Amino acid sequence: MSSELTALDGLRQTSLIRLEQTLDVFLPAISAASRLSEAMRYAALGGGKRIRPLLVYGATALAGGTPEQADTPAAAVELIHAYSLVHDDLPAMDDDDLRRGQPTCHKAYDEATAILAGDTLHTKAFELLATRGDYRSDTRIAMIRHLCQAAGVDGMAAGQMQDMLAQGQQQTLAALEEMHYLKTGRLITASLQLGYFAAQIDNIELLDSLTRFGDAVGLAFQIQDDILDITMATDQLGKPAGSDEKLDKSTFPSLIGLEASRQRASQLCADAIATLDGFGIHALPLQQLAQYIIARNH
Amino acid sequence: MSSELTALDGLRQTSLIRLEQTLDVFLPAISAASRLSEAMRYAALGGGKRIRPLLVYGATALAGGTPEQADTPAAAVELIHAYSLVHDDLPAMDDDDLRRGQPTCHKAYDEATAILAGDTLHTKAFELLATRGDYRSDTRIAMIRHLCQAAGVDGMAAGQMQDMLAQGQQQTLAALEEMHYLKTGRLITASLQLGYFAAQIDNIELLDSLTRFGDAVGLAFQIQDDILDITMATDQLGKPAGSDEKLDKSTFPSLIGLEASRQRASQLCADAIATLDGFGIHALPLQQLAQYIIARNH
Repeated sequence: MSSELTALDGLRQTSLIRLEQTLDVFLPAISAASRLSEAMRYAALGGGKRIRPLLVYGATALAGGTPEQADTPAAAVELIHAYSLVHDDLPAMDDDDLRRGQPTCHKAYDEATAILAGDTLHTKAFELLATRGDYRSDTRIAMIRHLCQAAGVDGMAAGQMQDMLAQGQQQTLAALEEMHYLKTGRLITASLQLGYFAAQIDNIELLDSLTRFGDAVGLAFQIQDDILDITMATDQLGKPAGSDEKLDKSTFPSLIGLEASRQRASQLCADAIATLDGFGIHALPLQQLAQYIIARNH
Repeated sequence: MSSELTALDGLRQTSLIRLEQTLDVFLPAISAASRLSEAMRYAALGGGKRIRPLLVYGATALAGGTPEQADTPAAAVELIHAYSLVHDDLPAMDDDDLRRGQPTCHKAYDEATAILAGDTLHTKAFELLATRGDYRSDTRIAMIRHLCQAAGVDGMAAGQMQDMLAQGQQQTLAALEEMHYLKTGRLITASLQLGYFAAQIDNIELLDSLTRFGDAVGLAFQIQDDILDITMATDQLGKPAGSDEKLDKSTFPSLIGLEASRQRASQLCADAIATLDGFGIHALPLQQLAQYIIARNH
């Protein structure tokens, strides 16, 4: 693998402008004027690393599909991610004031608007999958099913609940991994699965490999998040640094130490990359995305 | 039409036990033990008039379908309704302490749990439509599409936003009707549409009639809600009476008077009933449900 991450650069170039345009078309126009539409756009168009959409575009490409086929699921997973950030940032939840270097949605607007903007981003994700793009109905259903199961009470939302209940308590490493698998890992894996389904091919081996790739990358991503929270300053992160310690949360560094955390993330990254080794050059963007996830500094 | 509402009684008898059982199976078991699962069950199994599910069962039956075919969409529309009540009751929104005579979800649990329970009920509605029951994929997609469009930024959530922004302001009658159409009417109409789709027949005339029936019933329902808010006591309503006046909200009685409001609701009800006159005896439960909506006292 090239160390210059050129394949990943290529994925970014072809994907991220498409994603902005897709989200821009799909979200209500500001001329429709309501405060709610503005808050939705504020929450979803505010930048971010766009890792989940990149995973969708990368998986669709690896499955032989076109960027056009990846547009709808890429936008849908990002809308689910955006909705979860808006709600998680609320005063009753994590009570965060900063997100991506900007005021969080309830700070820029107000709590009621933020709750509703999260709700409408949430609905919009499923509306896109049910209505946009050119897919067979069974493809749409496969994408909706995997996204629901990753986001709901057996996935992301359950992870957020566990995360809040764990504040101030010492967790076991197993409980911490379970929480992160639910809160972050399942949506990351679903991004790869939706990207696969969007290509409308039948290759169970690839689906299985993408699932294992996603599970490893998702955990590596979260370990790196924990590491960044204690090693970086707020202005580099774009969100308050040190918030895990402030909330007395168990983290990988607090349970196994910083160096072991770094080794674990590297090993998971290597495992993820190896999972896709058999799929040739078209796997390179996803493999480099895995590298980026543990090399990133925000 | 019989004045004894016997056909509606029959619809209730065949439908409501099915609905409770369907929701009971679909919601996470309490033995799974999490606080989040309990809060979801608390919010969705707490009774209520179940008007939207009854509309689904009635529409499926009118379209020649079975109660089994109505189970999944009936549960899905009720989950969307339940999620919206949980979020609308939050302190940052309508700040209500009572719902169906019981503490609201954030009072029984806490705000964070209520936000997440609303979110997971929301996701679960789409998961049911994507996974449960025996439907063609295009039927599932039609149900999901209509439910998303009724619930999202062009429907229920937009209506709630308009409702909050209108507090303390004098509204025109047209603006009030628009707000209620979005906030309540669209989900009521979608309930009838989903019931139609669940039967998997092709009868556009019936779909069109059910849509017009729903639009009329939805507005009549809301006018009756406004009337009850000023004429009934809190213990009869199961939620705080007089809350519209307390929040300085425009209502039908405040804009056109109590007697004109009653006449308007009756006329809408008669219009709705007439819409289904051509469909014979199988329309009777829905027609009696329309009568019930303006005759109810809670």
